[in-house]
Amino acid sequence: MRYPESLLKLTRALSRLPGIGPKTAQKLALHLAFHKEEAEELKGALAGLSGLGVCRLCGNLAEGELCPICQDESRDPTLLAVVETVADLYALERSGEFRGLYHVLGGALNPLEGVGPKELNLESLWPRLSQVREVVLATSMTVEGEATALYLAEELKRRGVKASRLAYGLPVGGSLEYVDEVTLGRALEGRKPL
Amino acid sequence: MRYPESLLKLTRALSRLPGIGPKTAQKLALHLAFHKEEAEELKGALAGLSGLGVCRLCGNLAEGELCPICQDESRDPTLLAVVETVADLYALERSGEFRGLYHVLGGALNPLEGVGPKELNLESLWPRLSQVREVVLATSMTVEGEATALYLAEELKRRGVKASRLAYGLPVGGSLEYVDEVTLGRALEGRKPL
Repeated sequence: MRYPESLLKLTRALSRLPGIGPKTAQKLALHLAFHKEEAEELKGALAGLSGLGVCRLCGNLAEGELCPICQDESRDPTLLAVVETVADLYALERSGEFRGLYHVLGGALNPLEGVGPKELNLESLWPRLSQVREVVLATSMTVEGEATALYLAEELKRRGVKASRLAYGLPVGGSLEYVDEVTLGRALEGRKPL
Repeated sequence: MRYPESLLKLTRALSRLPGIGPKTAQKLALHLAFHKEEAEELKGALAGLSGLGVCRLCGNLAEGELCPICQDESRDPTLLAVVETVADLYALERSGEFRGLYHVLGGALNPLEGVGPKELNLESLWPRLSQVREVVLATSMTVEGEATALYLAEELKRRGVKASRLAYGLPVGGSLEYVDEVTLGRALEGRKPL
């Protein structure tokens, strides 16, 4: 049978999104076809994205030249957290523990995928270092995130800027029984006196 | 911190979709914010939905008054499959085994959720029966689908129309070891002479 062209087009557009396979895309497209008010809301929200750009300083999302964090004068401009993505920035913000500024790399080093230092948002990082006393390397605890943190640690050392890395250990609420052995080893290695 | 308003709006619109939780919605919204061409494509596809309506006869999606299936004169109009949703109709079409017409109920009986016969697309079913020799009750094998099939079987009997139900049994490629005992019992009950 022939699917309606507009449904096919919507299914295709949805299946390009990360984590949305062809089955989910069809389910969503059918849902939207039968819920026109939700389709309208989504369309309007997508149109609203046109005013959204990238912060000139840090790479966070911004409605103007600068993002709300770079504009916030109550934050400590001498402390900088380097993160891979805006999603990671939001995660750190939700922790409520970080009061410095950010720098969003837009990814992590991944030579196999052709992501080298030039592909990351690094050129705009170096000029920011002049007023920074510590850079927190808050890339992910993955192979790529670790490689990126190591690379940046070297570069920062060469430039005489103090670098630190997020701690490895057990997640809060985590049970020893279910945690993987590598994480447990790192938690032991990083144990603290009480 | 303050999230950009347009990102919040998009996250909210996405999280209304079935199976999309707040975390996935934020992930998708961020992806779209950084991939404007995908956001544009999706917006265009959503705009295309405006021309999509519901077939006057069967309740399938249609770009005009009638859906492609109801318009197809090579199909058998005396055989009718009653399905819950358009997704189920598409699934049956993909099997390639059904050459009759459809009737989409738009759901299944579910008294606890307030879905009675009046909430289903039934009023338009009765007039179609005059030219039908058999109705295949192709609702799901769930409690609600079964209840709907039983209700319809009664109604069809009262109207003197032959009704049949999809067969219970093992899925093709299914292993006896892993199939649940109720399905296995039904497969045994419905065994066929070779």
